[in-house]
Amino acid sequence: MQEILGSKTKKPGLDPGTLVHVGARRAEKTTITILDYDEHRYEEKEAQTVEECFAFKGRPTVTWINIGGVHQVDIIEKIGNHFGVHPLLLEDILHTAQRPKLEDFYNYLYIVLKLLRRNEANDEIDVEQMSLVLGDNFVITFQETSGDIFEVVRDRVRNNKGRTRKMGADYLAYSLIDTIVDNYFISLEQLGEDIEDLEEELVMDPTKGTLQKIHAAKRDMLTIRRSVWPLREVISGLQRGESTLFKKGTLVYLRDVYDHTIQVIDTVEAFRDMVSGMMDIYLSGISNKLNEVMKVLTIISTIFMPLTFVTGVYGMNFAFMPPKDQSWGFYASLSVMAAVVGAMLVFFRRKKWI
Amino acid sequence: MQEILGSKTKKPGLDPGTLVHVGARRAEKTTITILDYDEHRYEEKEAQTVEECFAFKGRPTVTWINIGGVHQVDIIEKIGNHFGVHPLLLEDILHTAQRPKLEDFYNYLYIVLKLLRRNEANDEIDVEQMSLVLGDNFVITFQETSGDIFEVVRDRVRNNKGRTRKMGADYLAYSLIDTIVDNYFISLEQLGEDIEDLEEELVMDPTKGTLQKIHAAKRDMLTIRRSVWPLREVISGLQRGESTLFKKGTLVYLRDVYDHTIQVIDTVEAFRDMVSGMMDIYLSGISNKLNEVMKVLTIISTIFMPLTFVTGVYGMNFAFMPPKDQSWGFYASLSVMAAVVGAMLVFFRRKKWI
Amino acid sequence: MQEILGSKTKKPGLDPGTLVHVGARRAEKTTITILDYDEHRYEEKEAQTVEECFAFKGRPTVTWINIGGVHQVDIIEKIGNHFGVHPLLLEDILHTAQRPKLEDFYNYLYIVLKLLRRNEANDEIDVEQMSLVLGDNFVITFQETSGDIFEVVRDRVRNNKGRTRKMGADYLAYSLIDTIVDNYFISLEQLGEDIEDLEEELVMDPTKGTLQKIHAAKRDMLTIRRSVWPLREVISGLQRGESTLFKKGTLVYLRDVYDHTIQVIDTVEAFRDMVSGMMDIYLSGISNKLNEVMKVLTIISTIFMPLTFVTGVYGMNFAFMPPKDQSWGFYASLSVMAAVVGAMLVFFRRKKWI
Amino acid sequence: MQEILGSKTKKPGLDPGTLVHVGARRAEKTTITILDYDEHRYEEKEAQTVEECFAFKGRPTVTWINIGGVHQVDIIEKIGNHFGVHPLLLEDILHTAQRPKLEDFYNYLYIVLKLLRRNEANDEIDVEQMSLVLGDNFVITFQETSGDIFEVVRDRVRNNKGRTRKMGADYLAYSLIDTIVDNYFISLEQLGEDIEDLEEELVMDPTKGTLQKIHAAKRDMLTIRRSVWPLREVISGLQRGESTLFKKGTLVYLRDVYDHTIQVIDTVEAFRDMVSGMMDIYLSGISNKLNEVMKVLTIISTIFMPLTFVTGVYGMNFAFMPPKDQSWGFYASLSVMAAVVGAMLVFFRRKKWI
Amino acid sequence: MQEILGSKTKKPGLDPGTLVHVGARRAEKTTITILDYDEHRYEEKEAQTVEECFAFKGRPTVTWINIGGVHQVDIIEKIGNHFGVHPLLLEDILHTAQRPKLEDFYNYLYIVLKLLRRNEANDEIDVEQMSLVLGDNFVITFQETSGDIFEVVRDRVRNNKGRTRKMGADYLAYSLIDTIVDNYFISLEQLGEDIEDLEEELVMDPTKGTLQKIHAAKRDMLTIRRSVWPLREVISGLQRGESTLFKKGTLVYLRDVYDHTIQVIDTVEAFRDMVSGMMDIYLSGISNKLNEVMKVLTIISTIFMPLTFVTGVYGMNFAFMPPKDQSWGFYASLSVMAAVVGAMLVFFRRKKWI
Repeated sequence: MQEILGSKTKKPGLDPGTLVHVGARRAEKTTITILDYDEHRYEEKEAQTVEECFAFKGRPTVTWINIGGVHQVDIIEKIGNHFGVHPLLLEDILHTAQRPKLEDFYNYLYIVLKLLRRNEANDEIDVEQMSLVLGDNFVITFQETSGDIFEVVRDRVRNNKGRTRKMGADYLAYSLIDTIVDNYFISLEQLGEDIEDLEEELVMDPTKGTLQKIHAAKRDMLTIRRSVWPLREVISGLQRGESTLFKKGTLVYLRDVYDHTIQVIDTVEAFRDMVSGMMDIYLSGISNKLNEVMKVLTIISTIFMPLTFVTGVYGMNFAFMPPKDQSWGFYASLSVMAAVVGAMLVFFRRKKWI
Repeated sequence: MQEILGSKTKKPGLDPGTLVHVGARRAEKTTITILDYDEHRYEEKEAQTVEECFAFKGRPTVTWINIGGVHQVDIIEKIGNHFGVHPLLLEDILHTAQRPKLEDFYNYLYIVLKLLRRNEANDEIDVEQMSLVLGDNFVITFQETSGDIFEVVRDRVRNNKGRTRKMGADYLAYSLIDTIVDNYFISLEQLGEDIEDLEEELVMDPTKGTLQKIHAAKRDMLTIRRSVWPLREVISGLQRGESTLFKKGTLVYLRDVYDHTIQVIDTVEAFRDMVSGMMDIYLSGISNKLNEVMKVLTIISTIFMPLTFVTGVYGMNFAFMPPKDQSWGFYASLSVMAAVVGAMLVFFRRKKWI
Repeated sequence: MQEILGSKTKKPGLDPGTLVHVGARRAEKTTITILDYDEHRYEEKEAQTVEECFAFKGRPTVTWINIGGVHQVDIIEKIGNHFGVHPLLLEDILHTAQRPKLEDFYNYLYIVLKLLRRNEANDEIDVEQMSLVLGDNFVITFQETSGDIFEVVRDRVRNNKGRTRKMGADYLAYSLIDTIVDNYFISLEQLGEDIEDLEEELVMDPTKGTLQKIHAAKRDMLTIRRSVWPLREVISGLQRGESTLFKKGTLVYLRDVYDHTIQVIDTVEAFRDMVSGMMDIYLSGISNKLNEVMKVLTIISTIFMPLTFVTGVYGMNFAFMPPKDQSWGFYASLSVMAAVVGAMLVFFRRKKWI
Repeated sequence: MQEILGSKTKKPGLDPGTLVHVGARRAEKTTITILDYDEHRYEEKEAQTVEECFAFKGRPTVTWINIGGVHQVDIIEKIGNHFGVHPLLLEDILHTAQRPKLEDFYNYLYIVLKLLRRNEANDEIDVEQMSLVLGDNFVITFQETSGDIFEVVRDRVRNNKGRTRKMGADYLAYSLIDTIVDNYFISLEQLGEDIEDLEEELVMDPTKGTLQKIHAAKRDMLTIRRSVWPLREVISGLQRGESTLFKKGTLVYLRDVYDHTIQVIDTVEAFRDMVSGMMDIYLSGISNKLNEVMKVLTIISTIFMPLTFVTGVYGMNFAFMPPKDQSWGFYASLSVMAAVVGAMLVFFRRKKWI
Repeated sequence: MQEILGSKTKKPGLDPGTLVHVGARRAEKTTITILDYDEHRYEEKEAQTVEECFAFKGRPTVTWINIGGVHQVDIIEKIGNHFGVHPLLLEDILHTAQRPKLEDFYNYLYIVLKLLRRNEANDEIDVEQMSLVLGDNFVITFQETSGDIFEVVRDRVRNNKGRTRKMGADYLAYSLIDTIVDNYFISLEQLGEDIEDLEEELVMDPTKGTLQKIHAAKRDMLTIRRSVWPLREVISGLQRGESTLFKKGTLVYLRDVYDHTIQVIDTVEAFRDMVSGMMDIYLSGISNKLNEVMKVLTIISTIFMPLTFVTGVYGMNFAFMPPKDQSWGFYASLSVMAAVVGAMLVFFRRKKWI
């Protein structure tokens, strides 16, 4: 439920723009990491106070400030005010139940994204909100935890691999979005494995637990869909090139990440079709089991009821009841019973029940 | 049913524009509250007669007149005529089964909204209609009851908190809409808790009552959807900035409330998916229960029918029926029966029924 | 089926524009009612021959000619030709299985509408077609019967109530459409009551008849939808103000009737959701009943089978079978049986079956 | 399956434009019928060779050439080349699994339509393809068989009934399309009767056959939908008046046939709703039957199990077992049994099972 | 699962444009086939090294280079760089889980397509990716295997059949796309046969295996849909003639292949409807079977329970129990039993159970 409603819904009645952190507190302490680079040099710094970031504003180099943890309202507020971010956006950054969205404030872009991570404890997918503010030559990212998902991007900067150092802040923003979408494929792969296991379980030995697993897979898909569908609109918006912050050379990369998003959506929809088919198979499996139980009952009843009747007949106490007193009578009755059993077995074989 | 049809459908054949109150009479007496303010001062007044409002028309300050209770037709008519509201709108104000809608009469806007409130008595969601007329520097709101949901907005005006006093009537209208949408989250949270309880109940011990609760949750979702989907269109219309009554500085706030509306819709749709999955689980739960009942029956029958048959055989009255007269015969027959029981138990264990 | 196909489908192969009445003959005799008015005077007349209408063409006053019954082809043809209605439209007027539609012939509009009426005989909804031709200052309406649904409009004209007499033919046309849409609410209300009854029946005592009532409610909804969805397009077309026949002052009224149409659609869709939920409840109700029947069977079998077995054991005829000959043997066996019954009852209590 | 895939799918690897007949050979011999007319005279001719048609090209009169049977590739090729039809279209004419479509080659239009005919042998709907080429003053139609569906149009030409002779080739094309759409109503009517029979059968006595009939009705609807939905687009395209081949005076007739198409679609969709409801009723009918069977079993078991137990008690061979030796003992035991039966009957009556 | 996710999802964190082969390695060795032709001559060549292709760049003749196998990254890279293909496209070529798509780089087009092939081993549909780069006078195709599906196109070039040699590279590209779409019909035909077999099996003797076959058919449809729906967009994009690489004379052919795509989609959707109907029939088949089993049980129980009761009565040991000692008593009791059986049979006949 938390996944859907956000941890706590906004307290109604607060003045719009009032900064309150809404969501689970996931990090102990807010970490501030600064990465400043151009093609020729780079500087990396773990800031102790938020004020250390301020110096990087207005530099010609690309500056990436990553805030890990959004529960300390004053930090968010200070950095937001210094970089000129609208108070309503700061409110959104602090409120971790946003949908992925894009807001264009002409001289900067505000993008909300969702990170997905399989929670090992309960096998559900955890959703973490990331806000990204892209300015002319800076990127500020706000994560709920100081997770290491962007380490791969940092490595590329540090080691000057690929194009990152040669290009501007927009390419950095693209790289971060690309990393997030790439991560969705990991969630999809895990989900795919779950579904494959489920299919086998369904054919082999469906139990009550199977139904719950189907339900859990459905939920995971719901979670992914809720993150990806709006993301598609966000990237589609970026890729149309309406903002001047994304330069023309970066647009082709956005088209690439857009394709990946479509691919994620496509895969989720295919999974959906498969899982909804599973439900049918599960239900018909229950019915089939019932049929089998009933067949056993019917076979047993149909064989023993006539037999019991025969024994009943000769269990009656009539004085005159041939061939009660013949020495072959007992064996004759047993033969009759054997014949009844035989006839029944033929009957069931014909009905293909045994 | 009332929730859907409105309390009473309009009497056909009335001339359009004829003012008749249609709906439940929810308030005892109509209350009229006036709040007049600008950045420097504010005045609050509980009007005894409708005429007291008239003086506030045309003042340069922002005037908010709140009418609590719409069953006294003459009050609505007088105030409507004085502020130049079209008779058809007055008809809509009095008829409390409108859908949320926006009508733009160039020099004023007419907005219909729905308040949702959990009815503690029957655990259903009550819907109350609010009409809002936004003019150049006044806002008139018509509620069915004199509920205190807007007290938070009044407080902001009284204590000059936030931006409200610094901005115009359009910001006041926005604040009221925002308060209503915020209230939807409370309904959603309650609904979310209900659904969570339901999920647990479904897994633990589904009964007939569970089905009715699922049905009730579906109804609540229906009620919320019917209020939110058209609301989305209303706010989307406002936010496009087609009316000059909403100034440019307020549009960014409308975009914010639009986001919230989308979030409400998103959550309701997610709930829908979850609840419809529940129905499947409930139905398969019934089938599973049946399977279990049938297994018990089959196990009992399959064990006792052969036993009864064996007793039947030696209950027959044949004169010659070895080993009837042996002293060990009785115990032999008991042993045979024990063997039958054992064989059956092995059979059931293999079928995983016990 | 008649409701859906129309009474009889058009005979294929007829030349287009050939005038043939297709549909049930609902009226005995065609009645022609003429109402001619302006703000100052009005004239009402029951015409005996169709020619009496001709004189009203071209008058500056508003003329409303109502034809009750469309089975007399010659009347329709004469009046159509005199007022310059296209032959294809005359064919449509005579053919009572049209969908609601709007055709704009620049100097006149042709509108097809559907009247709904609960048939008291079979509790189904009857559909009657009404065609309306709106010219510059005349309205001709063609009904299948001479029903009195428009009496309310006539009254307003006679008594000069409301705006009708002050406005033109377009307002008259609007009034008629408004009356029809208002009538839909009555059908909805009846349907709503049916659904409410059904819900109670479903919870209390669902029978086979319940299923048929659900089915009937579905059909009624189908009938209403088929009338309202195209009507929405018709009114939406009128309200966009593309035809000069509807003056600007009337458009605001069309917007009002458009809102009502949306409300009807909304309500029908809400009913649909509710009724489709009912089907689920009905089906699970059947399954629940089966479960209960099976529980009774299982309880009875599980109690009596072991008992019968015990009696069977001591019904065997072995010579040596302790404690057969003890005087307490009989009571001992009864005690054993009582113990078996007790154990079973505890077992069932634990399974919550009793 | 043939209905859906076409008789045989195109052999892959053929060069586009290669003329191969694909489909069932439905006619023995290709027939060529020529009808040439203007307002004053008409000529009708059964051509023996395809060359006889050539003379009619370029005449000022309207020429309609109907080709019955498309399996003789050379005939199609010759006539196509003479009248300047694109080779790809000839390929489409020969390949009888096209969807209805419209292709505009500026100086002529190519239209594919589907004729529906109830196959009396297997009660399924047969689909026949008709291609129509409309030039400035000629119409060429290609049918799979030389069916007589267009005889009604020929009659109108022969007897100079209606407008046909007065108007151009476009009106002739319209007449043919109109005839085809009119024929759909016959299929609908037959389908409607089938559905009505089904509904009665469902209520009276649903059997396995009923399910198959429901399935067959679904298939027929599928067939009709696949013919009508694309047809709608075709006629909508024509009616927008984009091609100059359709004169303005004919457009109003196209609008009429468009309305008919919508009506067909509407009816099919209504049938769909009804048939899908039937499936539910059928399934709940099966469940209801099972319930009834189980009730009989439960009643019988519940009555006779206790009785048999009572007889078992006094069938035991204990020496001391009062009132075994009393003369009233037998009657007493019978009374006990009667009481048991009575109690059971009361129990069942209360549960409303009997 | 592989079909849906691709063989392995992209390793997250790689710099965009990094060339890594992702997918199953389907071919042993990469084959490079060159076909160079104009209207007058043609040259065919099996290249040993990738450099042999380079000479064909810039020739006025049409050059078709087909790469069979995409696992050797260096080959793809060299040829891509030589012909000026964007690195991101090379990444897509190597990554075999793309959706069909079209990317227009002004001076060349990049098209991703999917080949479908029935895998004889497991009866599933195998999906192979083909990338096509269309330049001014060259076509480069990248297949996963060196399959012979395009042999028919090569034959046309070799033997100068049809138009291919007379037209440019765009017609060649069209021919390849057309061949692929034609191949879909083969998959459809096989699927159609499977469905036909399934329908028969469903009516004759539905087993658990039937359900799995239905499921497999659903999956195949899913696979085809996922290939065809985006293909439709691709061809629709080409056919709109936005790229100057496709000349006007080729557009009419694209329209033809577009029609075929629509036909494939249409057929898949029709299959979908049929298969989802099958599921219903299967489920009702299970229920029907259960009903029959239960009827047998009920008939047997209902006949033998009363009989056993009668024998029980005269198995009691009461001293006085007429007509125990009469010589006709035994026969009388047998007659009573026969009467009971007869009554039961009449009862069942009436209920139409036997």
